[in-house]
Amino acid sequence: MKFKSNKIEEQVADNGLLHRRIFLSNAGALLGAGASGILSGSIAHAQGAQSRPPWMRVPGKGVGGYGARARFEDHVQRSAGSAPGTTGAGASRTPLEHLEGIITPSSLHFERHHSGIPEIDPNEHRLLIHGLVERPLFFDMNSLTRYPMVSKIHFIECSGNSRVSGLIPEPVQQSCGVLHGLVSCSEWTGVPLSILLDEVGVDPDAGWILAEGSDSAAMSRSVPMSKAMDDAMIAIYQNGEKLRPDNGYPIRLFLPGYEGNTSVKWLRRIKVTAEPTMTKDETSKYTDLLDDGTSLMFTFPMEVKSVITSPSPGLDLEGPGLYEISGIAWSGGGRISKVEVSADGGLSWGEAELSAPVLDRALTRFRMAWQWNGAPAVIMSRAIDETGAIQPTRDSIIAAKGMKFAYHYNGIQAWGIDANGRAVNTYA
Amino acid sequence: MKFKSNKIEEQVADNGLLHRRIFLSNAGALLGAGASGILSGSIAHAQGAQSRPPWMRVPGKGVGGYGARARFEDHVQRSAGSAPGTTGAGASRTPLEHLEGIITPSSLHFERHHSGIPEIDPNEHRLLIHGLVERPLFFDMNSLTRYPMVSKIHFIECSGNSRVSGLIPEPVQQSCGVLHGLVSCSEWTGVPLSILLDEVGVDPDAGWILAEGSDSAAMSRSVPMSKAMDDAMIAIYQNGEKLRPDNGYPIRLFLPGYEGNTSVKWLRRIKVTAEPTMTKDETSKYTDLLDDGTSLMFTFPMEVKSVITSPSPGLDLEGPGLYEISGIAWSGGGRISKVEVSADGGLSWGEAELSAPVLDRALTRFRMAWQWNGAPAVIMSRAIDETGAIQPTRDSIIAAKGMKFAYHYNGIQAWGIDANGRAVNTYA
Repeated sequence: MKFKSNKIEEQVADNGLLHRRIFLSNAGALLGAGASGILSGSIAHAQGAQSRPPWMRVPGKGVGGYGARARFEDHVQRSAGSAPGTTGAGASRTPLEHLEGIITPSSLHFERHHSGIPEIDPNEHRLLIHGLVERPLFFDMNSLTRYPMVSKIHFIECSGNSRVSGLIPEPVQQSCGVLHGLVSCSEWTGVPLSILLDEVGVDPDAGWILAEGSDSAAMSRSVPMSKAMDDAMIAIYQNGEKLRPDNGYPIRLFLPGYEGNTSVKWLRRIKVTAEPTMTKDETSKYTDLLDDGTSLMFTFPMEVKSVITSPSPGLDLEGPGLYEISGIAWSGGGRISKVEVSADGGLSWGEAELSAPVLDRALTRFRMAWQWNGAPAVIMSRAIDETGAIQPTRDSIIAAKGMKFAYHYNGIQAWGIDANGRAVNTYA
Repeated sequence: MKFKSNKIEEQVADNGLLHRRIFLSNAGALLGAGASGILSGSIAHAQGAQSRPPWMRVPGKGVGGYGARARFEDHVQRSAGSAPGTTGAGASRTPLEHLEGIITPSSLHFERHHSGIPEIDPNEHRLLIHGLVERPLFFDMNSLTRYPMVSKIHFIECSGNSRVSGLIPEPVQQSCGVLHGLVSCSEWTGVPLSILLDEVGVDPDAGWILAEGSDSAAMSRSVPMSKAMDDAMIAIYQNGEKLRPDNGYPIRLFLPGYEGNTSVKWLRRIKVTAEPTMTKDETSKYTDLLDDGTSLMFTFPMEVKSVITSPSPGLDLEGPGLYEISGIAWSGGGRISKVEVSADGGLSWGEAELSAPVLDRALTRFRMAWQWNGAPAVIMSRAIDETGAIQPTRDSIIAAKGMKFAYHYNGIQAWGIDANGRAVNTYA
């Protein structure tokens, strides 16, 4: 009874969106709600003694040097795919629907390679900084780790992320991770690039840098000097330990908020230049083709975006009742200031709770309570960042830019929930 | 020249401790300093063309489902040890000196087991909450993951951590990780215990809970009800993915700031009680024996503490010059408000820079610039938390508590640096 009266008081948007405090301030309320509450058959009233499971009857495994996950979690994998006929041109996507919080475990961080992962001996690796400089220098790993470091928790997102979620005529039916999993978030530690640029002495005429990787594609991008001197980092550590090979071991460029491709992995060379170099990777790719046949170039910052990770395709609802909607939001423009959630296809919106810490250009976890009544519904989230930028609808993006472009799609993701609780990608 | 004049301006404590902005605001300054600057032989002036390394001449490895670290990093291991004659009673320690930032990769998170790691099938695991409750309940993993969750970045520290660094008559010569590596920091996500206690309906007479693990030691601890209803969590995720087996898979209790042992792993049972249960794990162990033969019991919060991770034993200095001192600080009392560093054995202290975010009961990374002149020196750090608690000296702890106790040692760690740049544990 108490639950029902509270439910009305706490409604923050139509079709069952509730203030999250309903979970936190009603002693016994959820249980009291019975079949319409959170309880399913999987909570059992305890009767009699608790038996000892088999794993309590034998000593367990001992300690070890470098741990691994449980074998019962082996199904949680990145979804990997390569271009036909190549060994290393492809991507793998973070299984967002299986993760919680904001840190992506490094083993599940997305990958995007243009010619595979080089196996680099760190003792042989050197970074050259040259071009419009007073004194070109090679830095080896010993010298780099002598420099002062900074640590930052930031997302990185491939600019091609989410394209298949909204820029295909009919909605693609895949998991949240397959549709949106070219985004991940880690704690990155490394040397500010500005310090190394000071070491080589940058020519006042220099406006750009070229960053080149030591993969066999020599993937390379031009970056404005203003960014290089601002918050660019030569990243050496990811989530506490050295970078993983699939994220640029032993060093990568890291450009907070910029499209992931510019954070060049396996970094071997920075050339200081007057103008952008116009490499193959910024002319034949990573430009945004518009309907009139022209292309936008050097569209670096990743736009404000969000997605509900639970419920989502594959994580179906188990019948009417109380659920927690959970998702992630991020923006290359700065901190997330607000995430709104709708359970009626965008007619009404309620504000979700943001989980602290809410950090600059990091994934931000949002959560909201939802009393699902069992009828078909369309759930969606939209993020707003500290600059005031609002995540747009799919329709408004297509009206403005057409459907030929492949990068920087950040439309609102709608999940349709059918009467059986099954979630699907829908263009609501 | 510029470097030398700045150096004097920026000195924050004696024997070469400099304000860290020396790294950040002097174009060309470090290089200009020549032999007394940061440069060593490992930076080379570039002449001629940069040759392509062998790994650029072949396509690299393709994408994968679950990534691994580089084989060149295999030497970074937890230091593991077990009690003689047992398979699973022991500990492994985080190699703090090889890590940066504040997140500990889950594979290197410390372990402490009392009878090894049980291999638990999550489909068979249930949590019983019973005792002084209205309705005892079993929760399986399906039902637990239906509840609302919270995410928090927190350290966890074994109360036995650092004992060997300071409570032995002669300084033990080991790495920073062996001496202090029973502390790690992760993002934990789970269900607030208060919600589950509300579900079962706690008797007003209940003052404590008993938490029991499903290892074969049935490790169990009593925890005050006030903590259980405050910020206690049933943790399900660690650093984004499900808990690792060595950290309690599929669920553990997590008590922010409390001694690690109370965050019971492989949690199977919470019994609501009037008084503490006085289990073997809180009477024969985890009490603090004083010189007068009495013991302190239930000393839960971990005290304010810090340690310099670089330089530290094994990470020796490569000759006189400019270095970055880097370390970690933490406190069960809340946020770290300040870390001070000394390079003259505690005669003078300078304030280190704290790397954002500085979070409640999380590891906090501090950094400071140090111009080492090549003479023997003693470096040390002391942390102060937001409650005003100050990390004490070894001498003051021993004067107050003697040397019989084994837990909650948080004395200032001094590293002696000899004229060859070698770092050793010293009781300065």
